[in-house]
Amino acid sequence: VSAAALNTLAIVGVGLIGGSFAAALRSAGLVRRVIGVGRSRANLERAVELGVIDQISSDAAQAAAEADLVFVAVPVQQTETVLGSIAPHLRDDAIVCDAGSTKGDVVAAAQRALGARFVQFVPAHPIAGAELSGVGAASASLYRDRLVVLTPTDATRTEAVERVQALWAACGARVVRMDAARHDAVFAAVSHLPHVLAFALVHQIAQRPDAADLFSFAGAGFRDFTRIAGSSPEMWRDIALANKDALLIELGAYRAELDALARCIAEGDGQGLAGMFESARSARQKWLKR
Amino acid sequence: VSAAALNTLAIVGVGLIGGSFAAALRSAGLVRRVIGVGRSRANLERAVELGVIDQISSDAAQAAAEADLVFVAVPVQQTETVLGSIAPHLRDDAIVCDAGSTKGDVVAAAQRALGARFVQFVPAHPIAGAELSGVGAASASLYRDRLVVLTPTDATRTEAVERVQALWAACGARVVRMDAARHDAVFAAVSHLPHVLAFALVHQIAQRPDAADLFSFAGAGFRDFTRIAGSSPEMWRDIALANKDALLIELGAYRAELDALARCIAEGDGQGLAGMFESARSARQKWLKR
Repeated sequence: VSAAALNTLAIVGVGLIGGSFAAALRSAGLVRRVIGVGRSRANLERAVELGVIDQISSDAAQAAAEADLVFVAVPVQQTETVLGSIAPHLRDDAIVCDAGSTKGDVVAAAQRALGARFVQFVPAHPIAGAELSGVGAASASLYRDRLVVLTPTDATRTEAVERVQALWAACGARVVRMDAARHDAVFAAVSHLPHVLAFALVHQIAQRPDAADLFSFAGAGFRDFTRIAGSSPEMWRDIALANKDALLIELGAYRAELDALARCIAEGDGQGLAGMFESARSARQKWLKR
Repeated sequence: VSAAALNTLAIVGVGLIGGSFAAALRSAGLVRRVIGVGRSRANLERAVELGVIDQISSDAAQAAAEADLVFVAVPVQQTETVLGSIAPHLRDDAIVCDAGSTKGDVVAAAQRALGARFVQFVPAHPIAGAELSGVGAASASLYRDRLVVLTPTDATRTEAVERVQALWAACGARVVRMDAARHDAVFAAVSHLPHVLAFALVHQIAQRPDAADLFSFAGAGFRDFTRIAGSSPEMWRDIALANKDALLIELGAYRAELDALARCIAEGDGQGLAGMFESARSARQKWLKR
């Protein structure tokens, strides 16, 4: 048995993300007992039926008191409250980790909520599908070949980071580490910005008096471009606000890019346009080939 | 045999679009002889081998002189030159049509190039895939259930419009008519704008010193959002310039939408953001259900 193996894992929020983490560790033989904590009794009973958790608890503090690892997989806005409620009950050797899409705000929330226990907290962002939800969608293979970004601080216990890294690796994930600010800047550029751009495009058309007519001529390109505008409005509101500073920098850079584009079009600068489009196409092809 | 049936069809530009039109009409039994005109001898020979055309001609004027219908499927920027070269040779009862993605510029070009023959010209935009090219990709079923927009003017001969409409319907397409200005406004909103937005996003990231690192964290959402940035740079340069006025209006509206979005984020207006995102998601779901 690996040194990372857990006796008791507490999952706060037994949905797609939390349930898949439990299922993957169980499938790897790395956990003896899983306690599930959540608001929906029906969902937790389903999790027991599916063999994802062994035991139900309605009290995060009580579950945390028994756990080697507390995995918090709740909407980002609730993270601080959950961490605050478990802080006084954590064992000295317990590890706490999360799965939030933004990291600077989670680190700050954890510092406030955990106090001296902050050294036991390993911030993490597994990059995995968010289209489905609930424990019924959970799978032991969700994280296979997916990326998990850990953003420990200088204060985070080294052994805790290493153990969490080993557990994610056992789930099949590729684990990378970076600081929280870099994480937030990177995902603002390649994920958060595209999401808000897609929402903005659809919203902007949907508001027009001739929206129905316009949509009737939208094709496959429009469908793919706006696929991410089918994501959860609440989740993306939270991400946009949680990563406000980095996202505003990206929006500013993108608006400057659109200004340059509009200038090329207005001036009939075909060479400038073809240069931008060609550079984009070749960069994208290079990316897809990796 | 339908009243729309053709004795001789001349295809100028025997690629995916022109080749598929010929193949579909042949498969519907609506054409006796197809003459292919193009710059690449190898491509034309391949078209003969595939049975898409019967005869090769290097001279559009000569082919046009024999044709009931001349189908011009060349890059939009070349349309005027091609029309000018065939104008003096067209029969009185011949019809000319095109397949360009923009229509206002094509109508203006046709007026200049065809003179009195302009009444014989039926402007058309088949909405069909442009990812593949060459006659090897042509297929008799390309237009099945696809949309074809005709943008005749008041001057266009009614019989010509009806005959072209019947031929496209025989290819399996849904045919709609609108005026060229409306066509260009509609496609600026639902097609041309998303294309330039996707190119702009990739270009803007590709230019940064840390582009490789950023791309390494881009996932499935980024891939779908930017799929259309894999399109032909030359074709999209031409479309952006040909539909300049409508596209600049759309870019302006989109930039105003981004300003409102940035304001919500900066002010922490979660309700405003959730409202925009929810309106976008529900409009998109409604559209997908149709």
